[in-house]
Parts: sequence; structure tokens; C-alpha cells
Amino acid sequence: MKKVGIVMGSDSDLPIVKKAIDTLEGLDIPYEAHIYSAHRTPIEARDFALNARENGFAAIIAAAGMAAHLAGAIAANTTLPVIGIPCDGARLDGLDALLSTVQMPSGIPVATVAVNGAVNAALLAAQIIAVTDAELAKKLDEKRKADSKKVLQKDAELAKKLLEA
Amino acid sequence: MKKVGIVMGSDSDLPIVKKAIDTLEGLDIPYEAHIYSAHRTPIEARDFALNARENGFAAIIAAAGMAAHLAGAIAANTTLPVIGIPCDGARLDGLDALLSTVQMPSGIPVATVAVNGAVNAALLAAQIIAVTDAELAKKLDEKRKADSKKVLQKDAELAKKLLEA
Amino acid sequence: MKKVGIVMGSDSDLPIVKKAIDTLEGLDIPYEAHIYSAHRTPIEARDFALNARENGFAAIIAAAGMAAHLAGAIAANTTLPVIGIPCDGARLDGLDALLSTVQMPSGIPVATVAVNGAVNAALLAAQIIAVTDAELAKKLDEKRKADSKKVLQKDAELAKKLLEA
Amino acid sequence: MKKVGIVMGSDSDLPIVKKAIDTLEGLDIPYEAHIYSAHRTPIEARDFALNARENGFAAIIAAAGMAAHLAGAIAANTTLPVIGIPCDGARLDGLDALLSTVQMPSGIPVATVAVNGAVNAALLAAQIIAVTDAELAKKLDEKRKADSKKVLQKDAELAKKLLEA
Amino acid sequence: MKKVGIVMGSDSDLPIVKKAIDTLEGLDIPYEAHIYSAHRTPIEARDFALNARENGFAAIIAAAGMAAHLAGAIAANTTLPVIGIPCDGARLDGLDALLSTVQMPSGIPVATVAVNGAVNAALLAAQIIAVTDAELAKKLDEKRKADSKKVLQKDAELAKKLLEA
Amino acid sequence: MKKVGIVMGSDSDLPIVKKAIDTLEGLDIPYEAHIYSAHRTPIEARDFALNARENGFAAIIAAAGMAAHLAGAIAANTTLPVIGIPCDGARLDGLDALLSTVQMPSGIPVATVAVNGAVNAALLAAQIIAVTDAELAKKLDEKRKADSKKVLQKDAELAKKLLEA
Amino acid sequence: MKKVGIVMGSDSDLPIVKKAIDTLEGLDIPYEAHIYSAHRTPIEARDFALNARENGFAAIIAAAGMAAHLAGAIAANTTLPVIGIPCDGARLDGLDALLSTVQMPSGIPVATVAVNGAVNAALLAAQIIAVTDAELAKKLDEKRKADSKKVLQKDAELAKKLLEA
Amino acid sequence: MKKVGIVMGSDSDLPIVKKAIDTLEGLDIPYEAHIYSAHRTPIEARDFALNARENGFAAIIAAAGMAAHLAGAIAANTTLPVIGIPCDGARLDGLDALLSTVQMPSGIPVATVAVNGAVNAALLAAQIIAVTDAELAKKLDEKRKADSKKVLQKDAELAKKLLEA
Repeated sequence: MKKVGIVMGSDSDLPIVKKAIDTLEGLDIPYEAHIYSAHRTPIEARDFALNARENGFAAIIAAAGMAAHLAGAIAANTTLPVIGIPCDGARLDGLDALLSTVQMPSGIPVATVAVNGAVNAALLAAQIIAVTDAELAKKLDEKRKADSKKVLQKDAELAKKLLEA
Repeated sequence: MKKVGIVMGSDSDLPIVKKAIDTLEGLDIPYEAHIYSAHRTPIEARDFALNARENGFAAIIAAAGMAAHLAGAIAANTTLPVIGIPCDGARLDGLDALLSTVQMPSGIPVATVAVNGAVNAALLAAQIIAVTDAELAKKLDEKRKADSKKVLQKDAELAKKLLEA
Repeated sequence: MKKVGIVMGSDSDLPIVKKAIDTLEGLDIPYEAHIYSAHRTPIEARDFALNARENGFAAIIAAAGMAAHLAGAIAANTTLPVIGIPCDGARLDGLDALLSTVQMPSGIPVATVAVNGAVNAALLAAQIIAVTDAELAKKLDEKRKADSKKVLQKDAELAKKLLEA
Repeated sequence: MKKVGIVMGSDSDLPIVKKAIDTLEGLDIPYEAHIYSAHRTPIEARDFALNARENGFAAIIAAAGMAAHLAGAIAANTTLPVIGIPCDGARLDGLDALLSTVQMPSGIPVATVAVNGAVNAALLAAQIIAVTDAELAKKLDEKRKADSKKVLQKDAELAKKLLEA
Repeated sequence: MKKVGIVMGSDSDLPIVKKAIDTLEGLDIPYEAHIYSAHRTPIEARDFALNARENGFAAIIAAAGMAAHLAGAIAANTTLPVIGIPCDGARLDGLDALLSTVQMPSGIPVATVAVNGAVNAALLAAQIIAVTDAELAKKLDEKRKADSKKVLQKDAELAKKLLEA
Repeated sequence: MKKVGIVMGSDSDLPIVKKAIDTLEGLDIPYEAHIYSAHRTPIEARDFALNARENGFAAIIAAAGMAAHLAGAIAANTTLPVIGIPCDGARLDGLDALLSTVQMPSGIPVATVAVNGAVNAALLAAQIIAVTDAELAKKLDEKRKADSKKVLQKDAELAKKLLEA
Repeated sequence: MKKVGIVMGSDSDLPIVKKAIDTLEGLDIPYEAHIYSAHRTPIEARDFALNARENGFAAIIAAAGMAAHLAGAIAANTTLPVIGIPCDGARLDGLDALLSTVQMPSGIPVATVAVNGAVNAALLAAQIIAVTDAELAKKLDEKRKADSKKVLQKDAELAKKLLEA
Repeated sequence: MKKVGIVMGSDSDLPIVKKAIDTLEGLDIPYEAHIYSAHRTPIEARDFALNARENGFAAIIAAAGMAAHLAGAIAANTTLPVIGIPCDGARLDGLDALLSTVQMPSGIPVATVAVNGAVNAALLAAQIIAVTDAELAKKLDEKRKADSKKVLQKDAELAKKLLEA
């Protein structure tokens, strides 16, 4: 199976990104995680992106805060799908990171998820691989059903709790 | 090759979505476009999503404005990658559509592009297919190089214009 | 008396929704509360809405955060009045939930209250029932007068406190 | 049938409010429309609200722009359901009117619709009456189905247009 | 000397308003403070405003949060200067209260100060009285000079601290 | 009678400020208008403020756009009431001017009106003078009544128009 | 004298950037202008930055819209002062470009000017050169005085106009 | 070497400004720090700016919160480069300070850095001096390389941590 690349702009983004890693591991999807900054290590970030397809990656997740250029900088150097996680490490509630990640100019898409939306970034990467991987597609469907069941269990517990009250 | 599904919430979104259609046609990617509203035709929207994998789709692009629930409603019924285009048909500069599209809860990702970013939505769909389609990947790389060349041509023209001035 | 339906997108919304429940109980209005997610349990959410009128509901309160589609998804499947509570469970101060709930397209109204405004959601449901229920209308008027009296008591206490200072 | 009250803060809001009037007329719902300003004619606005239930109103729609206090001022003087339309007559894209209308304090709900959402305000009023009026409920369901059919017709036209292109 | 009226929408605003009271007391300006809600006690709020000039008030300070209508409701019932303090008791960082207070329609001004800006509200009231009260004007000038001196003292302390470091 | 000072940051603000001038003239209030920029002519702006009380001014209206420092710069140099009009001459819908004008630090109040709210700025100045000028107070009350009557006339016209339709 | 580099992300930014060019020409400051996109021509943008000091540049102005990464991408590859102009070519009033340009992470500063603030970007570049260029500093002071005189002329014209009216 | 001036509007900004001081000291750049308020000590702020070039300053850093006029007030009185740090000491997440600092009118630039971006303000001042100071330029390049190395070390640590997990 192809790998998912994960790049974060700073180790301070790791607590958020960790949820993406856990999600990929839960789905047995191989990944490689790096701390590369679009501004402090632009060469490493670019080289990772330039060689990503050749190196067996299917998609790259890029997480960054503030003027979050990382996902865009990665996307500028590969035509693999790039998934951007805007992180709210700075002030302004992550609105700066969200707009910096999602408002990409025509020609260079970044598939943006919610502020701090690391689980969904991993799931999106998995869905991309699952387009041609029936087994993973099945796993994702099962996860959906399990998620659904969990909601219905909570609903049942609520019914019980309200009855008892 | 798998198809790209395109769903828009209203025919008023067509001028924006048209650029996605043109981009897909320029890349010879088969597609199917529909006007399905998350709120006015919820059954059709859901059925399209539920059967999309079986019907040979690789990804679904969903375009909607205001409280843009369409991409999320599609994503709730498929584990295919769903790409959301927030449209600014309403007031508030499209910020309502952007937040309604991108801030999806954990478990149901929507790959969001810029407000009115239809070209990038199509390119993202193409990139997803190209993960396992070397020929399309090559086309995308060539398009990138052509885009790059266009910028450099404009740069050369600017140099000339400034010299003459 | 007809019932009020309460649907929340996740059990994490319960602390907010609890105030709506308490308000309804304080007015002796029958209700039924569920945890149904627009995205994780779309079928249950839809079925609840589709059958709500037949099942004796007068109005449905829907509480959700982030890209809060729940109220809209309920409203798409019933012509009963649907009241939306945008919850601020996510970043962005609940602005995402507010815009996702209130900016509904023409044809599918959602009666939106303030961010986390669960008490008012319950009162609005009560007011809707009270349109044809004189006794409940009287109760609501009395509650208003009691609220008013409480403010004037606080005013009197302030006067005393300032005199003493 | 009970009437719907419509109050707008200024005659400049009439082009927006007109769509609410047309929607009510299309449903044969009696209404009464007034220009009363929360600030310029506070007595008239208050008196209208105070007597609304007695005068046979089921709900009041209040439309205003800028620091839109009208819906709240009406709601402070009645326990009938009050529906607020934030109008964008001023700068700031209607965000001022939206927040001024929806962020009501606990105890005094305003059922807020989208910026300029006059059609939905009228439909919401109709839905409130329809809670105990089966015939109107049926009309609303039929309108929904007609709206749905219109979307599917547009979808069919799109299919044809794309085939021909 | 004429009095300053202070009205707050809820006793939860008192910690903010207290700074206005302290500022007025520091300047020996008589005042009268009330808890009157624009929505829960509209009659008391209105009556206070209607009679304020006759009752010897020079200006009225009104503090409220969320959809902060109080200053506007007071201003609608008097032609005395009304000073609005937007309070951030709710979500959205006080932006809702700010826009609800400042964006008043033509004809009914509210002199708005910063979010939670109670000291400035009191100073503004003092400045209004000082227009025709030379002694108070002198006091205000002296306060300014004292404030200025305090800043320069801090500057001197900083210089010393930096030297020592 | 004391005069009202009017200062605008640029002659491009004149179309907005003109409404303040007209309002003052309509009330026979003497005024003096200047174009002084906080940044381009800081000395003139400061000197105007420093001497304003001595020169017979009762209040100063300051209108500016973008990073609107003018009102604050005037307020820093006088203890007369300073009224700020945030102008929307720039991008960002006047939000920049509004926040730059209203969010003044403790000690230096600016009485801020709505974005482009020139009429209200003039009325506020008039209200300040009227605190000790019974004749002007009466004029302001009459203007209010006239405004109120105009609204009621529009209401009557609407009633007629709806009847005829 | 050292040169000023000007880079814009697209030729659509030229109408804005033109004002920076005109300002530099008016001050006889040599410059070199390029169209280089952070995303479409990342290599050219980087190489320009990497060699800028060696090539005799004193500062680089970078203008871009939407998720405006250009200034940051330039700044990541030089320790020359980089001046960012956020352009409002996209929706959202340029707020996206502003936040993407100004919210740079620690270590990589971008000197950001107002949305579309091209004249100020050029002046800032000139001020940077003038730190060690007394002649240019004198020119800048004279320009300031001329600007100031223009404001005072407008003020005189206004006085005349108001007298005549 | 020329000095860097640092001005902050209040001693409450010192914890933020301290990082600028530390950064300058780390680079052996002489500086002078003051607490001068644009509004409380306008004369001192202006005089500092007016004499800054003569007093051997190369650039001035100005830090302020809320309606942050300080950088603009400094910039209005010097043609030295002025660097603005918007501080978030107030509500509204520093958006008020950001817009008040960056949206300067044409003619008076302020080089704005991120909200609370004190390190970058100091680096920008250093970069300005380094335009004609090869030794400092070298130091800045080395700092960049050290920063870059730190990121790569964190990347190596992450690789190890992930292997071990």
C-alpha cells in the first residue's frame, strides 16, 4: 500500500497531528511523519514534496498554524493530493491558519479540513487510497458504521438517563 | 478511468461549477454533473452519494452557498473523497459557505477548496485519480509546467513593458 | 399537548441542551430528546424528522456545533418549525455553527437562537405551542413577569448596596 | 386563521420584506404589515406587540438592519413567536444586523432567519400556524414537493445541456 | 451639578460597570445606578429615559452584552447624550455587543466606547458635564496630567530596570 | 452658543461629513470644519484640539477611515467630548476604521457612532450642547417627533398601498 | 544606490503594484519588478530571494492575494527586509491575504502594509534605504512636507467653499 | 552601529516587548526602550520620533494594543522605518490592534508584524540595519541556519520517537 506523508511546521503542532497518526495506525496505513517548516527549512519541505510520488506516497498531510503556508508550499511542488490542517497555535482562533490554507490560487489545490481537524485529514488520506483499494474502502465503511453505532448507543443511554431522572 | 461526480445545490451555482467541468474536460476525465439540493432534494443527494462508489465514481465535488450543507450531506453517505466548493452566492462574502463546508465534525471529512475555487476542486479530483493513474499524473505535471511557463512569459512581458516605459 | 423534539449532534452538546430540557420541564411541556448526528446517523435524523408531525411533535429543537448541519438536515425533512441552537463546541467562538445554522437557503427555514441559547430555544418551542394553548400562553406571560420582577429585585438590592458603600 | 404580523424598521426594508408578503399571500395566510421603528416609534412598536395576541396574531415577523433592535423590542412585549429578519441595508454585510437579532439574552427568544431571509421568515410563520392547521400543513408539504420537483427539472435540463455541448 | 445615570442590563454586568461608578466617584460627580433590562423590564428602562432630563440627569451610561439593545432603547426615549458600553459577557468576544450598540440608525445616536470600556464611559459623561463646568474641566485636565505623569514614571522605572539588567 | 468642531482626515471623507454639516446647520448650531490628518498634519490636528475649549468649542467630531487614528489623536489633546465617525473609504467594510476608533484605551474616550454615521455624530454633538441649552433640547425633541411622524406616515402609505394591491 | 526588488504573484496584481513602481520612480530609486508565483514558479521566486542581497537589492516588496504566501516564501530565502502587500483580488475583502501575509511565525518577519497599500510599501523600502542615505532621507522629508501642505491647501479650500455656501 | 528604538504604549505590553529586547541583545544591537503612550504622553512620543534620526536610531519598534495608534503616531513624525507590533492585551483577539496598526493611509507606512510578533519586529529592525552592515547580515544568516538546524533536529527526534512507539 502507498504511504501517507505527514508534515508539520513545528513540533508544537504534534499534539494535534498525533490524532492523524493514531487514525492512520488504526487503519494499518503506512505513513512517514516529518517536522519541516515552509519558512525555516524550505529546502527539506520542497524536496519531500518533489520526491513524494516517486517515494511511494499517495497523499501528503500538512499541518501548520498562523500564516500557514506549509500545505501550499508542499502543494506547489507535487501533484499528489495535499491535505491541509489549519492549526490554531496562534491568536485569532485559527482563522489566520484556515484562510492561509484554504484560499489557494487556481492551479494549486489544498484539500483543507477543519481547524485542528487532524482525524479528518487522516481519514481523507485513507479515502484517497481507498479509491482503488477495496479492502481499505471496506474498513472505512465499517468504521463509519461503528461510529454510527456509537452515536445510537449514546442516544439509548440518554433515553435511559432521562427516564431515570 | 473512474468518473468524477459533480453536485451543485442550485443552478445558480452553475457559472462557478462550469470551471470545474471545463477543467475536467481539459484533462479528459469523465464526469457526471447534477443539481441536487441537500435540503430540497435530500433523497436524490443521498442516493447519489450512497451508490457513487458502485457507480464508478472516484470522487465527488459538491458546490453550495450560504449554510452550505451539501458537501457534508454527500460525505455523510459515502466514504469516497468529497471535495467541497463554498460558493459566495449569498451575503457575508462566502464566509458562511466556507465555515459550513470546512468545519466538519470528526469522522466525516470534506476536502474544502477556496471560496468559488472550482478549478482547484477539479484538479484535486484529478490528483486523487492520478494517485494510481500514471498517465494522468503526467498530464497534471505537464499542466503545472505549462502554468509555470505562462507566469514566466508574463514576467518577460513585464520586463519588456517596463523597459519601454 | 403536543411534544417538543430535541435532537443534538453529539453527547458533548448535552450540557448546553440540558438547559432546554430543564426549561421545558419547568413549563410541563412533554419532550423527547435524542442524540442523532446529521453526518454519523443521517438515517435516524431524517426518519425522526419525517415522522415528527405524525408522532405528535409541535416543534423540533436541533443543537449542533462546528459545520452545524443538523438543524438544516431536520428542517429538510419536515415542515414543522425547526429551532436551531448553534453550539460553540469548536474553535471560532461558535461563529461557524451560527452561520451554518442561520444562513439557510430559501424554502427551508431554521429558527435560529443565540450561540448556546438553549433556554431561548425551549421558550420559542413553548411559544409556538402557546399560539393555540391559552393556558401555556398564560404560563409564559407569568414567567416573563417573574423574570421582570427578578430584575427589579436586583435593582433594589443594587440601590441598597450603593447606599451602604 | 390567525394573522401574521409584519413589522419593518424603515420603508427601505420593504423590497426585502415584500418577499415575505408574497410568500404569505401565496399561502392565503392573512397578514398585517407595518413600518414601526424600535427607536423612532418605540410606542407604536411596543403597542403592536403588547396587543398582538389579543388582536389575533399567531406570530410576528420583524425586519431591521444595522443595530437591528426591532425584533428584540417586539419580543420584549409579547410571548408570541417573533421571527427576526436581519437586513443588510448598512455596511458590514449584514453581520451587524445578524448579531443584533440573533444574540438575544435568555428569556426573550427571537427566531432568526438568514440575512435578508424574508421568504423563510414567512414560511416559518406559516409552519407555526400549521402546527394546529392540517390544511396549511398539507399546503406546506406540497410546496416542498413542488420546490423539490423544480430542482429535479433543473437537473434534467442540465443533463440535456451537457449532452448537447 | 447634574447627575449621571447608569443603567446595566443585568447584575452580571456590575463588575464592569463598577469601574464607571468608581471613576465618577473619584471625580465627585453624582450618579444613580440601575439594573434595567431592555427586554425584561422595558417599561422601567423607558420610563427612566423619558424622565431623565427632567430628573436632573446630564447623560446616561448604558451597559449590556450580547444583542445589546439597552443603550439604543434608552436613546430612543431621550435626547440626552447616551453612552453605550458593549459588554463581552457572551461568546463572540463582545463583537455582538459592539455592533449592536454602535451601529445605530440615523436619528438616534449612541456614543459607544470600547468593549468593557467603563472607565471611558464615565470620563465621557464627565467631559459632557464639563463643557459648561469649568471646575470639572480643570479636574479632568489634571487627571490627564496625572495619567501622563504615571506613564513617564513607568518609563523612568523601565530605564532603571534595563540599566540594572 | 458654543461651536462644534469638525475634523476630517482627508477631503475624500467630505461626502460623508457633509451630512453632519447639514444636520448642524439644520439645528442652527455654529461649527467650524477642517481637513487635518492625524498623520500628515499632526501639528495642526493637535493644535486644533489643544485650543478647542479656549476657542469656544463644545465638542469635536472627527471622521477618518482605515487605521482611523484621528479621533484618538484629537482626544489625546483635549478633554472636550470627541465624537468619532469611522469611515469606510478603504477595504474591509469599515471594520478597520470602527475598531481603530472605538477601542480606545482607558483614560481617553472617543464617543463612537456607526460606520459613516455622520448624522448621528452631529446629533450627538447637539445633544451635548443641549444638556445646558433648553431651547436646543426642545428643538431636538421636536426633530424626534417629526422623525417619528415621518415613520408613521410611511406606515399609513404602506397600509394604503397594500390595500390597493 | 541599492535596488528595490518587486515581486508580484500574478499579473492581475499589476494595477496595484504599479503605484509602488510609480512611487519608487518618483524618488529616483532603482528597482526591478518580476511576476513570480510562490506556487506556480517556486524555483524562480526562491532564486530571486536567495541571490537578492548579492544582486544589490536593499529590500524586496512582495504583492499577492488570497492565501498570499509570496512574501513569506521570499522572506524564507533571504534576510533582506521583505515588505508584504496583501492584495484583495479574491473574495473576503483581502482579509485572507492580510492574515496570510502578516501572521508570520517567529524567525521570518514580513513587514506588512495595508491591504492594497502599494504606495506605503514603496515608501517603506525607500525609508529602509534612507537609513544610510542622507539625500534620500531628505527627499522623504520633503515629500512628507509636500503631503502635509496638500492637506492644508485642501483645508483652506474647504474653508472657502463653506464660506461661499 | 545605529540604535533601535523601542516604544510601548503601556507597561502591560512589556512581557511581549521583552522578546524583542532579548532578540536585539542576542544580536548585540544597541537599543533604547521607552513607555510612551500615543494618547497619554503624545508630546513625548512625538518628540522621540521627531529626533530619532538625529539621535542615531535606524528604526523604531512600536508596540500597542486595542486601538493601537502608537506606531502610526510615531510614523507620522519620522521618516525612519517604523515597525508596529499589534498586542492583544484587549478583547477581540488582537484583531483591533492589528487593523489599527496595519491599515495606515498612503504616505505614512508602518511595517506591521504578527499579533504579539515581538521577535520578528526585532529581527526586522536587525535586517534593516543589516542592509548596509555585512557583519550583522552574516549573523542573521547564521541565526537562520541555526533555526533551520533546530527544526531538523526536532524532525530527527520525532523519527526516533515514532520508531520507538
